[in-house]
Amino acid sequence: MGVVVSLDEKKSNDGSVQPLVDLTRGDMGRVNELILSKAGSDVEMIPEVANHLISSGGKRLRPMITLAAARMFGYQGDGHVKLATSVEFMHTATLLHDDVVDESDLRRGRSTARMIWGNQASVLVGDFLLGQAFKMMVDVGSLEALDVLATSASIIAEGEVMQLAAAKNLETTEDEYLAVIKAKTAALFSAAAEVGPIIAAASRTDRQALRSYGLNLGLAFQLVDDALDYGGNAKDLGKNTGDDFREGKITLPVVLTYRRGTSEERLFWKEALENGQNDDKNLEKAKGLMTRYGALSDTVQRARHFGGIARDALAPLDASPQKDALLDVIDFCISRVN
Amino acid sequence: MGVVVSLDEKKSNDGSVQPLVDLTRGDMGRVNELILSKAGSDVEMIPEVANHLISSGGKRLRPMITLAAARMFGYQGDGHVKLATSVEFMHTATLLHDDVVDESDLRRGRSTARMIWGNQASVLVGDFLLGQAFKMMVDVGSLEALDVLATSASIIAEGEVMQLAAAKNLETTEDEYLAVIKAKTAALFSAAAEVGPIIAAASRTDRQALRSYGLNLGLAFQLVDDALDYGGNAKDLGKNTGDDFREGKITLPVVLTYRRGTSEERLFWKEALENGQNDDKNLEKAKGLMTRYGALSDTVQRARHFGGIARDALAPLDASPQKDALLDVIDFCISRVN
Repeated sequence: MGVVVSLDEKKSNDGSVQPLVDLTRGDMGRVNELILSKAGSDVEMIPEVANHLISSGGKRLRPMITLAAARMFGYQGDGHVKLATSVEFMHTATLLHDDVVDESDLRRGRSTARMIWGNQASVLVGDFLLGQAFKMMVDVGSLEALDVLATSASIIAEGEVMQLAAAKNLETTEDEYLAVIKAKTAALFSAAAEVGPIIAAASRTDRQALRSYGLNLGLAFQLVDDALDYGGNAKDLGKNTGDDFREGKITLPVVLTYRRGTSEERLFWKEALENGQNDDKNLEKAKGLMTRYGALSDTVQRARHFGGIARDALAPLDASPQKDALLDVIDFCISRVN
Repeated sequence: MGVVVSLDEKKSNDGSVQPLVDLTRGDMGRVNELILSKAGSDVEMIPEVANHLISSGGKRLRPMITLAAARMFGYQGDGHVKLATSVEFMHTATLLHDDVVDESDLRRGRSTARMIWGNQASVLVGDFLLGQAFKMMVDVGSLEALDVLATSASIIAEGEVMQLAAAKNLETTEDEYLAVIKAKTAALFSAAAEVGPIIAAASRTDRQALRSYGLNLGLAFQLVDDALDYGGNAKDLGKNTGDDFREGKITLPVVLTYRRGTSEERLFWKEALENGQNDDKNLEKAKGLMTRYGALSDTVQRARHFGGIARDALAPLDASPQKDALLDVIDFCISRVN
């Protein structure tokens, strides 16, 4: 019971986000209303900047996870809607600040807020959304949920600084890379998932299961994202292939190709990522090297590894439509890059 | 009883921050320890950047206010130390982000963090400190204190955006200017003062008294700060006279001088603040105009007005060393500019 039968009609090992979308549709309607209302301000520039990013077509995976994780344990109040909105605001604030830090011009194929309104507005509207996120969490009144989300806010910033410190350093190890994505990406997925059982007053075991699910899903998600930046079917994401290359970001495909390469090739990487020789010709050469050393497929293989851990984290839980939907999201995240 | 007699030996109408410093010395020792420990991170750059700002000799007025406001109502726990540290971290995060937004090179006579470590580090370490601030607040466990501080975080960011939107607009009215400083400066003073009675479980009336004290002290503080930027005995603050002028900031001295001036003078202001004709010669001319129209002394007069409201806010409270010290701070803030 509780198994969504229609799933079997799809290419199930490709996964799908659709069951999660369907399950959370009603609650997500309320999240979207709350997003609009809490991004509002008499200070005109705030909703302008916020809505630019909010309307840019992100999948809203994180708030859907919070909603499903609360419902999964029978939650009936409206706190999950506020927490899901908080999670999305934290994510939006991070994106606004990231664009300033990375000096990005485009996000999902559109001009970034900082290109239209300036770095200043991006920094400050990010701060505003973070403040609004905390207000909503306080409103829910769960100190445990507050603790989890506030802790993730610190960890995310720590991860971003780590990434900044490692920037353009090709000697970065896979472990160091993992520590960065664990903090900058996986911590929020983990918190988004864990606050569900928290407000549903589920058991400690259930909390740990959802936290582990979120953390490992987040790792898989970021690994695939980093692979997609060098190819794959990136178009439907609105991502610009090659962004990471042009910004000199040290992601796993680079780490693996660099370490596996010849000393001559390592010189190429240094020129490309440390010294900014990152034109399209060099991007193509980089992709060629990645293929030669199997770096993209191995990056996806790493993602599958974490996806498996996420799957096992949920395994002991009772069957439910939410559980099935969350499991399907793992495959969806990984299959984006086939 | 409770009156600090030694006060009468000083130039009492100049005020002094010394009684507050003396009263909170023990607790501030614990705040300073907590600042160092919570600004710590395995990510090297974080304590480096944070300590640069933390060690730069700010007065730490806000955390002292929180400590005194808690002790005033008999608080005996250690939550006030954590809240005071949170308040200082919120302030530090704001400064880090402000320097990026204002593109400032110097703060209190030293290079800003963004000049040494870059805008990126300033944005991200600010985010980290904000996250740490919220973690500490959650740790204290008072949802009411959390609400007050989270609300102030949103309001501060809103005020900064307001200021950004009003930037270089000489038609800004005094009311609009007041709305900006109420949000960007006074909101944190207000929250810093109000959380004292909150964790001390004082009455609603006491909370309102301290909130009003903080708000009006904050307004007076910012007004005097803005006057100091055009002169006064600014050296002991390590402030660069003329910073606001060079950044084209529309502060009250400018608003008053612009509105009271001739149309020719208004053209001068437009050239200076809107079109960047802000060399030292023009700064001297600006100061001259301010003196001619009494704009600096009227700005300080406005500060006295709010100082009076802050004083009356505390008037009904029982005598205590804390009350005396907080009253003395009002005069201290205003007398900085004599």
